[in-house]
Amino acid sequence: MRAAPSPDEIRKSNLAVLLRHVHRDGPVSRATLAERMGLNRSTILALTADLAAVGLVREELPGQTGKAGRPSLVVRPESERVYVVALDVGADRLAAARVGLGGSVLDQVETARPRGAFDPDDVIAALASMAREMIGRAAPEAVCVGVGVAFCGMVREEDGVVRYGPNIGWVDVPFGASLTRELDLGLRVAVGNNANLGALAERERGAGAGLSDLIYLHGDVGIGAGIIMGGRLLGGEGGYAGEVGHMIVNRNGRPCACGSHGCLEVEAGELGLIAAAGRDDPAGRAAVEAIVEAAARGDSTARDALHQVGDWLGYGVANLVNVFNPSMVVFGGVLREIYLASAAQVRSRVAVDALLAVRERVRLRTSALGGDATLLGAAELAFTDVLTDPVQTLARISAARA
Amino acid sequence: MRAAPSPDEIRKSNLAVLLRHVHRDGPVSRATLAERMGLNRSTILALTADLAAVGLVREELPGQTGKAGRPSLVVRPESERVYVVALDVGADRLAAARVGLGGSVLDQVETARPRGAFDPDDVIAALASMAREMIGRAAPEAVCVGVGVAFCGMVREEDGVVRYGPNIGWVDVPFGASLTRELDLGLRVAVGNNANLGALAERERGAGAGLSDLIYLHGDVGIGAGIIMGGRLLGGEGGYAGEVGHMIVNRNGRPCACGSHGCLEVEAGELGLIAAAGRDDPAGRAAVEAIVEAAARGDSTARDALHQVGDWLGYGVANLVNVFNPSMVVFGGVLREIYLASAAQVRSRVAVDALLAVRERVRLRTSALGGDATLLGAAELAFTDVLTDPVQTLARISAARA
Repeated sequence: MRAAPSPDEIRKSNLAVLLRHVHRDGPVSRATLAERMGLNRSTILALTADLAAVGLVREELPGQTGKAGRPSLVVRPESERVYVVALDVGADRLAAARVGLGGSVLDQVETARPRGAFDPDDVIAALASMAREMIGRAAPEAVCVGVGVAFCGMVREEDGVVRYGPNIGWVDVPFGASLTRELDLGLRVAVGNNANLGALAERERGAGAGLSDLIYLHGDVGIGAGIIMGGRLLGGEGGYAGEVGHMIVNRNGRPCACGSHGCLEVEAGELGLIAAAGRDDPAGRAAVEAIVEAAARGDSTARDALHQVGDWLGYGVANLVNVFNPSMVVFGGVLREIYLASAAQVRSRVAVDALLAVRERVRLRTSALGGDATLLGAAELAFTDVLTDPVQTLARISAARA
Repeated sequence: MRAAPSPDEIRKSNLAVLLRHVHRDGPVSRATLAERMGLNRSTILALTADLAAVGLVREELPGQTGKAGRPSLVVRPESERVYVVALDVGADRLAAARVGLGGSVLDQVETARPRGAFDPDDVIAALASMAREMIGRAAPEAVCVGVGVAFCGMVREEDGVVRYGPNIGWVDVPFGASLTRELDLGLRVAVGNNANLGALAERERGAGAGLSDLIYLHGDVGIGAGIIMGGRLLGGEGGYAGEVGHMIVNRNGRPCACGSHGCLEVEAGELGLIAAAGRDDPAGRAAVEAIVEAAARGDSTARDALHQVGDWLGYGVANLVNVFNPSMVVFGGVLREIYLASAAQVRSRVAVDALLAVRERVRLRTSALGGDATLLGAAELAFTDVLTDPVQTLARISAARA
């Protein structure tokens, strides 16, 4: 700390904190906000008035509370009026949603895509068209305050360059800048790794709500992790941390597209399961679901395959538990199905292979947001600016529209 | 931020920041401090006077600068007058040092200990005796401002309980509290995991000076990691993160004391090397050094053993690089010798098995603090209070002595 923050800085910070409470928790009474923020009610009144003046929140009487006395007004996010566009580039699909302040999904579209390489221009055109379609359906007075994209690969966050997107065949593609130009909304499109964004979403509104030390494992073609430690997403030197799919768990294992052998994702992910089950389905969620269903019907090949894959997944999770001492590991994407069908195996490996003190309080859970975790994480990314400096961000956007 | 910090809080924070500059960088001119802290010279003058009044720093004329004009006074830590006691419990040794403010080692003693279980009371008595011996040699006016211990196992930092110390045979030993009582200095003894403290020391004054994303790998009997990400030590839910020695790299590998097979520490550490070399030496640093020397002399068994162990170490490092995207991995303890003798193998594994974007800027280095990294980290732990609230901490200690 160098010198005292100015009253303006304090006000800006308090506005941001108040808006984050309303965004995360939904309608909150002024009294509760005063208590949570440690401020008196008249300060809350003034802050709320500032946010209401630019259309970010509104105040209204709460429903019947059963308590005597004058009820405290409830501060509610202007979900219909203030929204972001969230986009998701997965191995199997492109998805888009319009998400209102407060986290409600107002509109959602999705298109399947065939596996394999996909020209960046085509992806950008498809995403832009989905975004425009949804923006066109919004009320005329509604304001888009951000665009965020979850991408299935390694992303340099500061400029949205995709460094490596093996499942889509991209290397060093200036994805964020191109999509910003194509959309032409006067908003910089923010791009993040899909597992990182899934972790944020699960921490914000999902299985790990409120936790500080959380690993979100996302299974698509490969396996990536979003790792939150001490409340912050782990980035590493360049922002590429979390490539847990390439932890080698089986030195003499299957070849991986990365050039190694026995990476976690080829032993324990979708590819490992399909190979273990000896199927010649095209890869994808449907193939995983078919194997899980076959095992449930008693098919012994499918059962053995899930047993084997659960064992490898257990090694991977045990390694992560030893390294991170997380309070929760969340399984998302196709790992949700794989974990549900092999949980006993995964849990017993963790019990054997992780040390007592690091595992004694860890919980293993499936994603509470299901297939939408990464998309909802992209929405949270898109809300960053407005949640950091609410009034200035709205003013900037209004000026650009005028 | 709730409300503006009070002038007292700002002063306390500025005193702490100034003292940390002097502690980390040594003698600094007032002009430089003013520049680094973004404060004017008269504020620096007042802060320095406060610290000097309680005996934490002194001001003096710098040496010949060659510049014309009146030289800016240099602020110097009172290293002889203000010190901490640092202790280190390793698998092979007990070590102790008296370390002055500014990081200078004023006194150091060490005793070898045989491998294996060691009664907590005996360890506490031995450490207390080493500490008292060194305190007795300090000048009468010198003040001990903290005691820190690096321990070779899992430690619950808030109360200094050793949860698991496999190499010394401890489970749930109230080590910190017992040592506090035994020393009876009116100071709480702080205990930390040795690899965590080694990481702090290497970041503060060693190979990773100033880095934000650093992994320090400490080899003793086992392998532990201190992981600093985004400038902060990774703790996890209970503070036990960093048990990378128990990452399984070889499913069908050697049995590990933890109950698993093929943990990194049994394949790539001291135990792995001694087994691979087919030697029946008692384990320990001397055995590792003997194998390294034999390999240097051309002994092919020793060379093969180092090659094999370097390969496993490379798998472990590649996994960590994929998971963390660190800017540096530092090899300390006996891993320093093992890495130096097998660096080519380790590096080639990392090149093959870590993804390009995560490894392109990673540096692999040996500990700059050598065998003292963990002991010096314990000193940094012991300085925590005085570096957080310098004047109050000194006042509290002076009152206790009076």
